[in-house]
Amino acid sequence: MDGDNPICSMSASNVRSSTIRDFLNDANLPGMISLAGGLPNRELFDVSGIKTACNTVLHRHPEAALQYGATEGQASLRRELVSLMAHRGIDTTADTIVVTTGSQQAIDLVARALLNPGDIVALERPSYLAAIQAFTLAGAKFWTMPSDADGVLTDRLPNFRTGDRRPKLAYLVTNFSNPSGTTLPLARRKALLAWAVENKVFILEDDPYGELRFRGHRIPALITLAAEIPGAERWCGYASSLSKIVAPGLRVGWLVLPNKLSDTVVRVKQALDLHTSSFVQEIAAEYLASSALSDRINLARERYRQHSDALVDALDNHLHAELTWNTPEGGMFVWATFKHNGDTSTLLPIARKEGVVFVPGIAFDPMTESRNSMRLSFATAGPAQLTEGICRLARAISEWRMQT
Amino acid sequence: MDGDNPICSMSASNVRSSTIRDFLNDANLPGMISLAGGLPNRELFDVSGIKTACNTVLHRHPEAALQYGATEGQASLRRELVSLMAHRGIDTTADTIVVTTGSQQAIDLVARALLNPGDIVALERPSYLAAIQAFTLAGAKFWTMPSDADGVLTDRLPNFRTGDRRPKLAYLVTNFSNPSGTTLPLARRKALLAWAVENKVFILEDDPYGELRFRGHRIPALITLAAEIPGAERWCGYASSLSKIVAPGLRVGWLVLPNKLSDTVVRVKQALDLHTSSFVQEIAAEYLASSALSDRINLARERYRQHSDALVDALDNHLHAELTWNTPEGGMFVWATFKHNGDTSTLLPIARKEGVVFVPGIAFDPMTESRNSMRLSFATAGPAQLTEGICRLARAISEWRMQT
Repeated sequence: MDGDNPICSMSASNVRSSTIRDFLNDANLPGMISLAGGLPNRELFDVSGIKTACNTVLHRHPEAALQYGATEGQASLRRELVSLMAHRGIDTTADTIVVTTGSQQAIDLVARALLNPGDIVALERPSYLAAIQAFTLAGAKFWTMPSDADGVLTDRLPNFRTGDRRPKLAYLVTNFSNPSGTTLPLARRKALLAWAVENKVFILEDDPYGELRFRGHRIPALITLAAEIPGAERWCGYASSLSKIVAPGLRVGWLVLPNKLSDTVVRVKQALDLHTSSFVQEIAAEYLASSALSDRINLARERYRQHSDALVDALDNHLHAELTWNTPEGGMFVWATFKHNGDTSTLLPIARKEGVVFVPGIAFDPMTESRNSMRLSFATAGPAQLTEGICRLARAISEWRMQT
Repeated sequence: MDGDNPICSMSASNVRSSTIRDFLNDANLPGMISLAGGLPNRELFDVSGIKTACNTVLHRHPEAALQYGATEGQASLRRELVSLMAHRGIDTTADTIVVTTGSQQAIDLVARALLNPGDIVALERPSYLAAIQAFTLAGAKFWTMPSDADGVLTDRLPNFRTGDRRPKLAYLVTNFSNPSGTTLPLARRKALLAWAVENKVFILEDDPYGELRFRGHRIPALITLAAEIPGAERWCGYASSLSKIVAPGLRVGWLVLPNKLSDTVVRVKQALDLHTSSFVQEIAAEYLASSALSDRINLARERYRQHSDALVDALDNHLHAELTWNTPEGGMFVWATFKHNGDTSTLLPIARKEGVVFVPGIAFDPMTESRNSMRLSFATAGPAQLTEGICRLARAISEWRMQT
């Protein structure tokens, strides 16, 4: 900006706009098939269940929903989240929970509570884009952890104890990661915790997708495993959200943190937004208490399994010569990589003309690499659309190969 | 924190917890009369109107309320806010509005978009506490503007053009300021804008209380006046909120900013929480469209006028020898100052025992001064309670005088 306008801060200037959010407009074009956004399928929204919860809250305790509330969250919702987490094998109490405005704010809160400008954050590669944005805004630098198709290669994590390049925070999505779809195996989870304690690195485990497992068996969360590893409970926190299992429009997420860090996060959150909407918190609590959720989650699992199968079958049929990909056990994403070189960001405009959009891999890489990969979401479109979308993608790839 | 726990960031360590939020617990003690919190009177919540809005939204367009939305806010709400602001004499368009999670987030967003650590923020003295927190978290230093009982003394603002102590941002509540109750006169508003242009200081005008005027005449907002002052439109922004006129539990606020800054703020907000709850935004839009609001605001004005009169009469009857105070024309607060020395934070524990709480002035001063003042809110308690609260305060002051 020139001298006749306010000059923006360094950290704000460094934050790139989300390529994905920019694509949301494309996804709304008539006839477009979107494999781009991670938008939950709209047929899974329990509109009547949420309406009932609204009316119950406004009938029984309107003031709790309409007045200012505690920064750490409404007592009713924190209680329900304890039960929800117990189903995930996470044993906690209401006073360890901080309710956040979506899990995006959980990431920002931890970043602001822990990071000074120039501090290093360890990330998976590729990583969740909006986490990269939040850490960039906190002035962080990045170090990418060595990884393979199962996530972080814990036996190749270096020992930072004596160096000054030690990351202060490691961030990862442990289940059906966004964008790579990987799930960190049990042995690596334990090894990661041991490494965190030894190297004094705080691990933030983000788990928005864990409930959406449609194959295989649940692997315990890091905060569950931390109980077995001396010292580990002080070095890990857990973030999750109702966005993928109830509705993203509510913007209800939460954090479970060690006590001292939790106190700091609550002070920081006061400065950020005083508290997350007590209105949506009370409605979410009422909805969770209604026991409608477990049927909804089963429905989502079955639906997303069908979507995933349709997408993978179509890839098998049309693109096995061009691409490799993971076969999902849950979540919303397939990460597809060209066998031969190819920059997926140059493919995108051609695909867009063919009527299909995806997110190029470069968007997810803190080092802006991963050029020959792309993220394909199977959440938003239905099975028939996914099949058609991959046909269009195959046509786009043929055109693109001829041009380059 | 010791070496066996994660070490918090410098800026997070500098943020004090809000004394006021700590008092909210006290306010809930049985029999306690609270003059502390700025909680809107609960009898003013339009529960049935909000219930109708919920049901309409979930019936007519549930997906807009439940799915992810645009970072800048829902189109429906931005349109309604344009109308709301037109009633305030503010002429704007939907594309200049960024919806925020309460006006608290509006302050944090502007802080993060503009401030590098060490940058200076100009504040009123006393200032809104949670704004001090947000600027502290951004690593700001403070400079307090010279002021009197009408707010900033614009003819005593220095010229910073050549100095390096120039504030980058000035923050003020122009109408019925929190905590001082002052309203900046028209001539000072114009002078402040001219100073901002000349000194390249961005002015953030926070206006949560402007609609709650129950005496006298509305003074135009800075962004309205900026149209008359060359260059001023690039140097001022406007923040407001539905918290004081609809319900704080919704957490719906908004910003009106010059274009370039608005783009940066939207990028920053992506990293903070993706977007404000689309669920509450759609409900707020529906409620604003229902035309119930203007009756509600009239009701609130009348109610708060009665409250204010009860509080001021009781002060006249019981404490005119001890205190001076402003006579409010609107808003929620009276700022009372001892004629003789006295630290109101030492008075508070005695008042608490007598069954009344207030907020000591020190909480609102960026330099932690204003020790001999206190903020008395007339929003939460009714007239009879306010009268009784001041009787209790008078008793507490007598006891306290005897002890010191």
